[in-house]
Amino acid sequence: MALYSESVGALIEKFSSLPGVGRKSAQRVAFHLLSLSDEEVRSFAETMIRAKETLCYCKVCQNMSDKEICDICSDPNRDRSVICVVEDPRDVISIERSMEFRGRYHVLHGVISPSKGIKPDDLKLRELVSRIDGDIKEVIVATNLTVEGETTAMYIAKLLRPLGVEVTRIAHGLPVGGDIIYADEITLAKALAGRTRIG
Amino acid sequence: MALYSESVGALIEKFSSLPGVGRKSAQRVAFHLLSLSDEEVRSFAETMIRAKETLCYCKVCQNMSDKEICDICSDPNRDRSVICVVEDPRDVISIERSMEFRGRYHVLHGVISPSKGIKPDDLKLRELVSRIDGDIKEVIVATNLTVEGETTAMYIAKLLRPLGVEVTRIAHGLPVGGDIIYADEITLAKALAGRTRIG
Repeated sequence: MALYSESVGALIEKFSSLPGVGRKSAQRVAFHLLSLSDEEVRSFAETMIRAKETLCYCKVCQNMSDKEICDICSDPNRDRSVICVVEDPRDVISIERSMEFRGRYHVLHGVISPSKGIKPDDLKLRELVSRIDGDIKEVIVATNLTVEGETTAMYIAKLLRPLGVEVTRIAHGLPVGGDIIYADEITLAKALAGRTRIG
Repeated sequence: MALYSESVGALIEKFSSLPGVGRKSAQRVAFHLLSLSDEEVRSFAETMIRAKETLCYCKVCQNMSDKEICDICSDPNRDRSVICVVEDPRDVISIERSMEFRGRYHVLHGVISPSKGIKPDDLKLRELVSRIDGDIKEVIVATNLTVEGETTAMYIAKLLRPLGVEVTRIAHGLPVGGDIIYADEITLAKALAGRTRIG
């Protein structure tokens, strides 16, 4: 005998399919949702559909936006000579929060991954190349420190260097507050290799 | 400048409002949802609305159901002489999983809480009283071990004893695998008070 009705089971299933949501959390969230008023549930569902419907990609940087050209790309105060290349729209949010970067972005929407069958053509690389003109001085590749991220960074370097633009990679090393004892060996190796002179 | 569009922000807001979902998880979940196809997003939203629309309460036990009388109440193999009273529909699921109880349930949908303004009349107590007839031998009160849960248990005992039904309380004590060193004092006190003879 089912412990809940088919429609409640289906709802729990949906929540379970979200990243980082286990069976138990999905159940809690579903039951919470069902305890809300009809209007609140409808509003949640409509917010979902509307967010998806209004979603489009910035023609310049390929980031998620609800405009043809996103707020960052159309901001006259951003440095137009630097492009920071990232894998995912969430990376843009993280880097923006660091308040360290004043250039513009380019979102690849993935990384090259032979094992997952993701080829260079599946990424927004053509769009990146088309942005390189005399005004662009530097492209910072901020893909993650994974085999795929590194492969993609190398690929971009080979692709863009002939166009006369400087291609750099963000630094990898010990996180601030990180403890050497607990650092993994790849991070430590990167931290050593990337050492800078002091004093 | 907003880091995401208004409609994406609204979606993250909605997910943040769910229990146990922090800001960061809400963002991850929202971005994951937006990466799905239009059909998948629509199906998620519709599942939500349908679960809420088809939801009703079992006329007998007041548990969430999609039928007038739920599967447990209509099951002829369940013991009709015992009712287990719980606060919440999720408690039914947990107890069912323990495979220890073969009677029927009664869901109060809350506990008496003067601080939150929840009075006995706000709970499904009238419905509980109306179920007590000659066939009911025992009512097990399985509310949580909180001030409110205990108050509610006492209230139910006073309410039902005059009707000639035995009212019992589930045992509280050390959880299986629990370590005395780490047990809180209330659990320990309950474990001691509830000790049973061995050997």
